[in-house]
Amino acid sequence: MSLSYFQLSVPVYIRMLGNLSHLLDKASAYCSEHNIDEAVLLQSRIFPTMYPLVKQVQIATDQAKGSIGRLSGITPPKLDDDETSFGQLRERIGAVLSYLETIPPDALDETASKTITMPWMPDNPMQGEFYLVNFAVPNVYFHITTVYNILRHNGVPIGKTDYIGEI
Amino acid sequence: MSLSYFQLSVPVYIRMLGNLSHLLDKASAYCSEHNIDEAVLLQSRIFPTMYPLVKQVQIATDQAKGSIGRLSGITPPKLDDDETSFGQLRERIGAVLSYLETIPPDALDETASKTITMPWMPDNPMQGEFYLVNFAVPNVYFHITTVYNILRHNGVPIGKTDYIGEI
Repeated sequence: MSLSYFQLSVPVYIRMLGNLSHLLDKASAYCSEHNIDEAVLLQSRIFPTMYPLVKQVQIATDQAKGSIGRLSGITPPKLDDDETSFGQLRERIGAVLSYLETIPPDALDETASKTITMPWMPDNPMQGEFYLVNFAVPNVYFHITTVYNILRHNGVPIGKTDYIGEI
Repeated sequence: MSLSYFQLSVPVYIRMLGNLSHLLDKASAYCSEHNIDEAVLLQSRIFPTMYPLVKQVQIATDQAKGSIGRLSGITPPKLDDDETSFGQLRERIGAVLSYLETIPPDALDETASKTITMPWMPDNPMQGEFYLVNFAVPNVYFHITTVYNILRHNGVPIGKTDYIGEI
Protein backbone atom coordinates (compact mmCIF):
# COMPACT_ATOMS: atom_id res chain seq x y z
CA MET A 1 0.00 0.00 0.00
CA SER A 2 2.98 2.30 0.01
CA LEU A 3 6.40 2.98 -1.46
CA SER A 4 9.51 3.84 0.51
CA TYR A 5 11.45 7.02 -0.28
CA PHE A 6 14.01 4.75 -1.92
CA GLN A 7 11.41 3.01 -4.10
CA LEU A 8 9.89 6.25 -5.34
CA SER A 9 13.24 7.73 -6.36
CA VAL A 10 16.22 5.41 -6.96
CA PRO A 11 14.56 2.84 -9.27
CA VAL A 12 12.57 5.64 -10.94
CA TYR A 13 15.78 7.56 -11.67
CA ILE A 14 17.49 4.40 -12.89
CA ARG A 15 14.65 3.67 -15.28
CA MET A 16 14.33 7.24 -16.57
CA LEU A 17 18.09 7.80 -16.96
CA GLY A 18 18.21 4.54 -18.92
CA ASN A 19 15.49 5.91 -21.17
CA LEU A 20 17.46 9.16 -21.52
CA SER A 21 20.55 7.21 -22.56
CA HIS A 22 18.43 5.40 -25.15
CA LEU A 23 17.17 8.75 -26.50
CA LEU A 24 20.78 9.90 -26.87
CA ASP A 25 21.62 6.68 -28.74
CA LYS A 26 18.92 7.51 -31.25
CA ALA A 27 20.17 11.11 -31.50
CA SER A 28 23.70 9.89 -32.15
CA ALA A 29 22.51 7.49 -34.88
CA TYR A 30 20.51 10.33 -36.46
CA CYS A 31 23.63 12.51 -36.58
CA SER A 32 25.65 9.75 -38.25
CA GLU A 33 22.94 9.05 -40.78
CA HIS A 34 22.46 12.67 -41.80
CA ASN A 35 26.06 13.88 -41.47
CA ILE A 36 25.13 16.23 -38.64
CA ASP A 37 27.89 17.42 -36.30
CA GLU A 38 26.82 16.16 -32.85
CA ALA A 39 27.77 19.58 -31.44
CA VAL A 40 24.85 21.10 -33.36
CA LEU A 41 22.32 18.97 -31.48
CA LEU A 42 24.21 19.28 -28.19
CA GLN A 43 23.96 23.06 -28.44
CA SER A 44 20.34 23.10 -29.63
CA ARG A 45 17.75 24.90 -27.47
CA ILE A 46 13.99 25.38 -27.30
CA PHE A 47 14.54 29.14 -26.85
CA PRO A 48 17.69 31.30 -26.63
CA THR A 49 17.29 31.84 -22.86
CA MET A 50 16.90 28.12 -22.14
CA TYR A 51 19.81 25.73 -21.63
CA PRO A 52 21.07 23.66 -24.58
CA LEU A 53 20.65 19.89 -24.74
CA VAL A 54 24.06 19.16 -23.22
CA LYS A 55 23.22 21.19 -20.12
CA GLN A 56 19.74 19.61 -19.87
CA VAL A 57 21.41 16.19 -19.63
CA GLN A 58 23.92 17.51 -17.09
CA ILE A 59 21.14 18.92 -14.89
CA ALA A 60 18.95 15.79 -15.15
CA THR A 61 21.86 13.68 -13.92
CA ASP A 62 22.91 16.26 -11.30
CA GLN A 63 19.40 16.39 -9.83
CA ALA A 64 19.22 12.60 -9.68
CA LYS A 65 22.60 12.00 -8.02
CA GLY A 66 22.39 15.22 -5.99
CA SER A 67 19.02 14.46 -4.43
CA ILE A 68 20.04 10.94 -3.47
CA GLY A 69 23.38 12.20 -2.17
CA ARG A 70 21.76 14.89 -0.01
CA LEU A 71 19.13 12.56 1.43
CA SER A 72 21.32 9.48 1.93
CA GLY A 73 24.60 11.10 2.87
CA ILE A 74 26.36 8.82 0.36
CA THR A 75 28.67 11.04 -1.69
CA PRO A 76 27.81 11.01 -5.40
CA PRO A 77 30.50 11.07 -8.11
CA LYS A 78 31.84 14.50 -9.06
CA LEU A 79 31.41 15.10 -12.79
CA ASP A 80 33.21 17.71 -14.89
CA ASP A 81 30.43 19.11 -17.12
CA ASP A 82 32.78 19.00 -20.10
CA GLU A 83 30.97 16.55 -22.41
CA THR A 84 31.21 17.28 -26.15
CA SER A 85 29.58 14.19 -27.65
CA PHE A 86 26.60 11.91 -27.11
CA GLY A 87 29.05 9.15 -26.19
CA GLN A 88 30.45 11.27 -23.35
CA LEU A 89 26.93 12.14 -22.17
CA ARG A 90 26.06 8.44 -22.11
CA GLU A 91 29.23 7.83 -20.03
CA ARG A 92 28.05 10.55 -17.65
CA ILE A 93 24.68 8.87 -17.31
CA GLY A 94 26.48 5.56 -16.80
CA ALA A 95 28.50 7.03 -13.92
CA VAL A 96 25.30 8.21 -12.22
CA LEU A 97 23.59 4.86 -12.81
CA SER A 98 26.61 3.08 -11.23
CA TYR A 99 26.30 5.36 -8.20
CA LEU A 100 22.53 4.80 -7.89
CA GLU A 101 23.04 1.01 -8.07
CA THR A 102 25.15 1.23 -4.88
CA ILE A 103 22.43 2.89 -2.76
CA PRO A 104 21.03 0.47 -0.17
CA PRO A 105 17.21 0.36 0.08
CA ASP A 106 17.25 1.79 3.63
CA ALA A 107 19.54 4.72 2.77
CA LEU A 108 16.69 7.21 2.43
CA ASP A 109 14.70 6.18 5.51
CA GLU A 110 15.53 9.40 7.37
CA THR A 111 14.30 11.61 4.52
CA ALA A 112 11.31 13.01 6.44
CA SER A 113 13.55 14.39 9.22
CA LYS A 114 16.05 16.08 6.88
CA THR A 115 16.13 19.70 5.80
CA ILE A 116 17.57 20.45 2.37
CA THR A 117 18.70 23.92 1.33
CA MET A 118 19.76 24.47 -2.27
CA PRO A 119 22.79 26.81 -2.55
CA TRP A 120 20.89 29.18 -4.86
CA MET A 121 17.83 29.34 -2.57
CA PRO A 122 19.39 29.94 0.88
CA ASP A 123 16.12 31.38 2.21
CA ASN A 124 13.99 28.41 1.13
CA PRO A 125 14.92 25.33 3.16
CA MET A 126 12.83 22.32 2.16
CA GLN A 127 11.67 19.45 4.34
CA GLY A 128 13.26 16.25 2.97
CA GLU A 129 10.09 14.59 1.71
CA PHE A 130 8.88 17.82 0.10
CA TYR A 131 12.29 18.25 -1.54
CA LEU A 132 12.25 14.72 -2.96
CA VAL A 133 8.62 14.60 -4.14
CA ASN A 134 8.01 18.19 -5.21
CA PHE A 135 11.44 19.40 -6.26
CA ALA A 136 13.95 16.69 -7.21
CA VAL A 137 11.66 14.22 -9.01
CA PRO A 138 9.76 16.91 -11.01
CA ASN A 139 13.11 18.43 -12.01
CA VAL A 140 14.46 15.12 -13.28
CA TYR A 141 11.32 14.61 -15.37
CA PHE A 142 11.50 18.20 -16.60
CA HIS A 143 15.04 17.96 -17.92
CA ILE A 144 14.58 14.53 -19.53
CA THR A 145 11.38 15.70 -21.25
CA THR A 146 13.16 18.85 -22.42
CA VAL A 147 15.92 16.72 -23.96
CA TYR A 148 13.17 14.75 -25.71
CA ASN A 149 11.56 17.96 -26.98
CA ILE A 150 14.86 19.39 -28.24
CA LEU A 151 15.54 16.15 -30.15
CA ARG A 152 12.00 16.08 -31.60
CA HIS A 153 12.34 19.74 -32.60
CA ASN A 154 15.43 18.73 -34.59
CA GLY A 155 13.66 15.88 -36.34
CA VAL A 156 15.20 12.95 -34.44
CA PRO A 157 12.82 10.00 -35.02
CA ILE A 158 11.78 9.20 -31.44
CA GLY A 159 8.36 8.70 -29.88
CA LYS A 160 6.72 8.74 -26.50
CA THR A 161 7.54 5.07 -25.95
CA ASP A 162 11.25 5.96 -26.07
CA TYR A 163 10.62 8.35 -23.17
CA ILE A 164 8.41 5.99 -21.17
CA GLY A 165 10.56 2.90 -21.73
CA GLU A 166 9.85 -0.82 -21.72
CA ILE A 167 6.39 -1.83 -20.49
CA MET B 1 9.48 6.22 5.75
CA SER B 2 7.03 5.73 2.93
CA LEU B 3 4.26 7.28 0.87
CA SER B 4 0.93 5.66 0.05
CA TYR B 5 -0.17 5.31 -3.57
CA PHE B 6 -2.57 8.17 -2.86
CA GLN B 7 0.18 10.42 -1.49
CA LEU B 8 2.48 9.86 -4.43
CA SER B 9 -0.20 10.68 -7.00
CA VAL B 10 -3.25 12.71 -5.96
CA PRO B 11 -1.50 15.60 -4.14
CA VAL B 12 1.29 15.53 -6.74
CA TYR B 13 -1.23 15.87 -9.57
CA ILE B 14 -3.10 18.61 -7.69
CA ARG B 15 0.11 20.56 -7.22
CA MET B 16 1.35 20.11 -10.81
CA LEU B 17 -2.04 20.82 -12.43
CA GLY B 18 -2.18 24.00 -10.33
CA ASN B 19 1.23 24.93 -11.71
CA LEU B 20 -0.02 24.16 -15.23
CA SER B 21 -3.01 26.44 -14.70
CA HIS B 22 -0.63 29.17 -13.55
CA LEU B 23 1.49 28.70 -16.71
CA LEU B 24 -1.66 29.13 -18.81
CA ASP B 25 -2.52 32.32 -16.89
CA LYS B 26 0.86 33.74 -17.91
CA ALA B 27 0.33 32.60 -21.51
CA SER B 28 -3.07 34.29 -21.62
CA ALA B 29 -1.63 37.54 -20.24
CA TYR B 30 1.17 37.37 -22.83
CA CYS B 31 -1.40 37.04 -25.61
CA SER B 32 -3.35 40.06 -24.36
CA GLU B 33 -0.22 42.15 -23.99
CA HIS B 34 1.10 41.38 -27.48
CA ASN B 35 -2.21 41.17 -29.36
CA ILE B 36 -1.68 37.48 -30.10
CA ASP B 37 -4.72 35.36 -30.95
CA GLU B 38 -4.81 32.68 -28.24
CA ALA B 39 -5.51 30.11 -30.97
CA VAL B 40 -1.98 30.66 -32.29
CA LEU B 41 -0.42 29.50 -29.02
CA LEU B 42 -3.03 26.76 -28.50
CA GLN B 43 -2.08 25.30 -31.89
CA SER B 44 1.68 25.73 -31.44
CA ARG B 45 3.86 22.62 -31.54
CA ILE B 46 7.49 21.64 -30.91
CA PHE B 47 7.47 19.70 -34.21
CA PRO B 48 4.77 19.09 -36.85
CA THR B 49 4.26 15.45 -35.78
CA MET B 50 3.82 16.37 -32.11
CA TYR B 51 0.53 17.43 -30.54
CA PRO B 52 -0.25 21.15 -30.19
CA LEU B 53 -0.43 22.86 -26.80
CA VAL B 54 -4.19 22.41 -26.44
CA LYS B 55 -3.85 18.64 -26.83
CA GLN B 56 -0.88 18.53 -24.44
CA VAL B 57 -3.11 20.08 -21.75
CA GLN B 58 -5.93 17.67 -22.58
CA ILE B 59 -3.63 14.66 -22.27
CA ALA B 60 -1.99 15.87 -19.02
CA THR B 61 -5.43 16.19 -17.44
CA ASP B 62 -6.68 12.93 -18.98
CA GLN B 63 -3.69 11.00 -17.62
CA ALA B 64 -4.20 12.48 -14.16
CA LYS B 65 -7.95 11.83 -13.87
CA GLY B 66 -7.75 8.60 -15.89
CA SER B 67 -5.08 6.99 -13.72
CA ILE B 68 -6.89 7.84 -10.49
CA GLY B 69 -10.18 6.69 -11.98
CA ARG B 70 -8.75 3.34 -13.11
CA LEU B 71 -7.01 2.65 -9.81
CA SER B 72 -9.74 3.92 -7.45
CA GLY B 73 -12.86 2.91 -9.39
CA ILE B 74 -14.24 6.42 -8.79
CA THR B 75 -15.53 7.63 -12.16
CA PRO B 76 -13.76 10.81 -13.33
CA PRO B 77 -15.60 13.63 -15.13
CA LYS B 78 -16.04 13.20 -18.88
CA LEU B 79 -14.57 16.17 -20.75
CA ASP B 80 -15.30 17.18 -24.32
CA ASP B 81 -11.85 18.08 -25.70
CA ASP B 82 -13.32 21.16 -27.37
CA GLU B 83 -11.41 23.96 -25.63
CA THR B 84 -10.55 26.99 -27.78
CA SER B 85 -9.11 29.40 -25.19
CA PHE B 86 -6.80 29.42 -22.19
CA GLY B 87 -9.83 30.21 -20.04
CA GLN B 88 -11.54 27.02 -21.18
CA LEU B 89 -8.37 25.01 -20.57
CA ARG B 90 -8.19 26.42 -17.05
CA GLU B 91 -11.82 25.37 -16.53
CA ARG B 92 -10.88 21.88 -17.72
CA ILE B 93 -8.02 21.75 -15.22
CA GLY B 94 -10.43 23.05 -12.57
CA ALA B 95 -12.86 20.19 -13.28
CA VAL B 96 -10.06 17.65 -12.84
CA LEU B 97 -8.84 19.34 -9.66
CA SER B 98 -12.40 19.22 -8.26
CA TYR B 99 -12.54 15.49 -9.01
CA LEU B 100 -9.12 14.84 -7.42
CA GLU B 101 -10.20 16.73 -4.27
CA THR B 102 -12.99 14.16 -3.78
CA ILE B 103 -10.66 11.12 -3.74
CA PRO B 104 -10.41 9.65 -0.23
CA PRO B 105 -6.86 8.83 0.97
CA ASP B 106 -7.59 5.08 1.06
CA ALA B 107 -9.06 4.94 -2.46
CA LEU B 108 -5.83 3.69 -4.05
CA ASP B 109 -4.92 1.09 -1.42
CA GLU B 110 -5.67 -1.84 -3.78
CA THR B 111 -3.38 -0.48 -6.51
CA ALA B 112 -0.81 -3.28 -6.24
CA SER B 113 -3.42 -5.97 -6.95
CA LYS B 114 -4.92 -4.22 -10.01
CA THR B 115 -4.11 -4.81 -13.66
CA ILE B 116 -4.46 -1.87 -16.01
CA THR B 117 -4.69 -2.28 -19.78
CA MET B 118 -4.68 0.83 -21.93
CA PRO B 119 -7.10 0.58 -24.90
CA TRP B 120 -4.31 1.28 -27.41
CA MET B 121 -1.96 -1.33 -25.86
CA PRO B 122 -4.23 -4.37 -25.45
CA ASP B 123 -1.23 -6.73 -25.37
CA ASN B 124 0.58 -4.82 -22.61
CA PRO B 125 -1.36 -5.14 -19.34
CA MET B 126 0.42 -3.30 -16.52
CA GLN B 127 0.46 -4.17 -12.84
CA GLY B 128 -1.22 -1.29 -10.96
CA GLU B 129 1.85 0.02 -9.14
CA PHE B 130 3.95 -0.16 -12.31
CA TYR B 131 1.22 1.68 -14.21
CA LEU B 132 1.03 4.45 -11.62
CA VAL B 133 4.77 4.96 -11.03
CA ASN B 134 6.23 4.24 -14.46
CA PHE B 135 3.45 5.21 -16.83
CA ALA B 136 0.85 7.64 -15.45
CA VAL B 137 3.08 9.93 -13.36
CA PRO B 138 5.86 10.21 -16.02
CA ASN B 139 3.19 10.99 -18.63
CA VAL B 140 1.69 13.79 -16.53
CA TYR B 141 5.14 15.33 -16.07
CA PHE B 142 5.88 14.88 -19.77
CA HIS B 143 2.82 16.75 -20.99
CA ILE B 144 3.10 19.59 -18.46
CA THR B 145 6.78 20.06 -19.33
CA THR B 146 5.93 20.03 -23.03
CA VAL B 147 3.34 22.79 -22.47
CA TYR B 148 6.09 24.73 -20.67
CA ASN B 149 8.48 24.19 -23.59
CA ILE B 150 5.91 25.23 -26.21
CA LEU B 151 5.22 28.43 -24.24
CA ARG B 152 8.94 29.17 -23.83
CA HIS B 153 9.50 28.52 -27.55
CA ASN B 154 6.91 31.23 -28.22
CA GLY B 155 8.57 33.72 -25.91
CA VAL B 156 6.14 33.57 -22.98
CA PRO B 157 8.06 34.97 -19.98
CA ILE B 158 7.98 31.98 -17.62
CA GLY B 159 10.74 30.26 -15.69
CA LYS B 160 11.44 26.96 -13.98
CA THR B 161 9.89 28.22 -10.74
CA ASP B 162 6.55 28.55 -12.54
CA TYR B 163 6.78 24.83 -13.37
CA ILE B 164 7.98 23.73 -9.92
CA GLY B 165 5.56 25.93 -7.98
CA GLU B 166 5.62 27.40 -4.51
CA ILE B 167 8.43 26.18 -2.23
